[in-house]
Order: sequence, then C-alpha cells, then structure tokens
Amino acid sequence: MEIKVIAFDADDTLWVNEPYFRETETAFCQLLESFMPLHSAERALLQTEIKNLPLYGYGIKGFTLSMVETALTISEGHIKAAAIGRILELGKELLARPIELLEGVEDVLLALKERYRLVVATKGDLLDQERKMKNSGIDHHFHHIEIMSDKGVRDYRKLVRHLDIAPEHFLMVGNSLKSDVLPVLELGGHAIHVPYHTTWAHEVVEDTIDHPNFRAVTGIADILPLLS
Amino acid sequence: MEIKVIAFDADDTLWVNEPYFRETETAFCQLLESFMPLHSAERALLQTEIKNLPLYGYGIKGFTLSMVETALTISEGHIKAAAIGRILELGKELLARPIELLEGVEDVLLALKERYRLVVATKGDLLDQERKMKNSGIDHHFHHIEIMSDKGVRDYRKLVRHLDIAPEHFLMVGNSLKSDVLPVLELGGHAIHVPYHTTWAHEVVEDTIDHPNFRAVTGIADILPLLS
Repeated sequence: MEIKVIAFDADDTLWVNEPYFRETETAFCQLLESFMPLHSAERALLQTEIKNLPLYGYGIKGFTLSMVETALTISEGHIKAAAIGRILELGKELLARPIELLEGVEDVLLALKERYRLVVATKGDLLDQERKMKNSGIDHHFHHIEIMSDKGVRDYRKLVRHLDIAPEHFLMVGNSLKSDVLPVLELGGHAIHVPYHTTWAHEVVEDTIDHPNFRAVTGIADILPLLS
Repeated sequence: MEIKVIAFDADDTLWVNEPYFRETETAFCQLLESFMPLHSAERALLQTEIKNLPLYGYGIKGFTLSMVETALTISEGHIKAAAIGRILELGKELLARPIELLEGVEDVLLALKERYRLVVATKGDLLDQERKMKNSGIDHHFHHIEIMSDKGVRDYRKLVRHLDIAPEHFLMVGNSLKSDVLPVLELGGHAIHVPYHTTWAHEVVEDTIDHPNFRAVTGIADILPLLS
C-alpha cells in the first residue's frame, strides 16, 4: 500500500477520553440513586444521548444537556435544583480535564512525521477538541486538524478531497471500528484498529472485519512495523 | 482593491439568527418572572453566558446550559423541575428553527460567484452551523465553509492561510464589527459592515471605524456597487 496521509482519531487513540466520561456517568447515576438503580440510570442516559445525537451531535455540551434531561425524566420531576447544579458542574469538570496522552503516541508520531503527512480526524465539540489538541503538546506534529460533526463515509470523502489525495493513499488509525474503520474501508481507504479498553456503547460494533485494507493491532506502537 | 475571496458571516448576515435568540431569551425570562423582573433576568443570563464563553464557546448548546445555570442561580434553587425541562425544550426549539434568508442574499451571491471565490466564515456549534448551511439552500454557491470556534485575528490568519491568499485579497462581509470587521482590518484584509437591527450585547462595539479598507453599507445588496 502506498500511503501518503495518516489520519489519527484523537479521543482514546491519542489520549484518554472514554474513562473520563464513564467516571462522570457514574457520578451522575449516584446522584440519582434514590430514584433508580445505577445500572438502569446508565441505560436511561444512553437512550437519551442516542435520541439527542441528531440534534446535539457529539461532545460534552450535548452530553451534559442529556444528563440534565435524563435526571428530569428519571426523577419524574422530583430532582432537586442542587442536583441539577451538580450535573452542570460535572459537565464543566469534564471539559476541564487535563490531557493524558496514551503510551507510545509521541514516539509513533515522531517516527512517522518525516515520511507521511499526519493529520487528526476527530469528532466532538469544536472548541473543546481545539482546546484538547492545543493542550496535548503534540499539535505541532500534525499538518492538519479536522474536527468533524460525524465520521461517516461522506465525511471521510470530504476530508480526503480536502487533503487532495485518492482514498487509497489514506490511512486512518483509531479505536472505533464504527467511526474510524468501517467508513474508511467503504471509501476505499486503509484502516488500522487500535482498540482501547473502554468504548462507548453507541460505538460498539460486533462484526469481525476481514478486508485487505484492514489491520488490527494491540497498541499504537504496533503500527510502525506495518508501515515500514 | 484586488479581492480574490469574499467571506460572508452567516448568522444575521445571510439569515435571521439573533431575533430567534432574543425570543428564546424572553421566554426564558418569563419562566423566571416570579423570582426576578424580566430585565434583571436578561442581565443575569448575559453575565452567565459571558462567564461560560471560554469553556462552552458560541452556539445554542452552551446557551442552553447557561440558561439552566442562570435559572438555578436566580431562583436560589427554588426553580421547579418542569421549568428546567421547559428550558431544555427552548434550546431544542432554537436548534430546530427553519432558515430564513435575509433579503437580497441569493442575488448577491449569484452576482459575485463568477468573479470571486465565495466562502462562509461563521462561529457556533459545528453540527448546528452545518445543518443551517445545508438547510439554507445556498450552500452550493460557496467554495468553502469555515466553522470557527472564535473570530479573532489569529483565527482569520489561519483561514486566509488555508485559502492560500494574502490578507489584502480577502474581503469579509458581516454584521458584527467585533467579529467580522475589526480583526480582519487588523490582519490587513478588507471588511464591509452590513448592520443588522438586532445585535447580541456581547458583540456590540461603540467605536466609529475609519480605515481605508473598511466600508459600511445599509443592506447586503449595497456591496455590489462597491465591487464593480
């Protein structure tokens, strides 16, 4: 394969993200424990999030709004104002979490940046993703940062056009089969799956992928031998 | 002036936006009338919004979160859950408002698109601005849509670089002196101010601008004679 551009997903590929959401979710469910058992509250939140996705999109602000909505529903209107205030704080704390790079990330970028154009392709809130990128200390390795409202085939087609390359010269590296792998393969690009121990339920794909343009590795450092 | 790219602001330059926010704000303040007079509630909301801007950025999701926060503060925790639910709905209604193009917009775009590269430079929530652009029915006139987390000099510098032109070949058209005019002039570009009858308090600039690269017109159609 002749790769010209390598795009990296950001959340849970370059840095820790999902565990922070899980912690917030747990704190949220604990707030509502008098109304509903933890596990059911979790499920109710997920349902609200998925229902609101077309309107809110991905990111912490929509997640916070969905937490507030779920709290109103679960409590049947009996939630205290103080608990709503705590939910807003949980959202703000999530926005303010420091960036924790995943192991091996910086070495991989250093090893690849001379031979490839490196870009980031991430979804979420615009300002939040920009801030994370800036705080990561690795933004100077990238030629371009693309913050996308979604990661479907159409979105990747637009990105690849913008990068002025053919799909077969594009490689996507990420932790989500649904967002980082399947649409890229459908477009005719290449994809490497670097799984992360925690995946949001809405991103989970049960399929086994067997495709000539696809590889799966266990850690990000394992992509280097595949590219040499 | 030799202009190559004309960038248009979107909200209140291409289509109606601020009046919808004002309507939502009024509905919000009415919800809180038993706690605080309308005018004071408005001021409290603006304060919360400005305080939260660095964290939430621009857009309806952050605005909705700020409404919830303001309601908790103003009511000193006595707000009913149903009122919080109504605030979430107000936010969703705002996200779902249809696009209402401003008078003359389409004619101006048609007249200019053969001679200039036309782009949109707007700030706000990524998904929301994309949706508005798509629903506007005028997206095919534009060469590029840039959704920015902010509109400062640095942001315009990045845009102009991305467009691969010098600032002196860039013209920005918009309704906000603060966001569409001043930073562009500082960068060395050109700017035309097309005022709109309603401006968010945070965008209001009291200065009178006297600059060789600056023009003010009363309606968007008036930019055509300036460019012929």
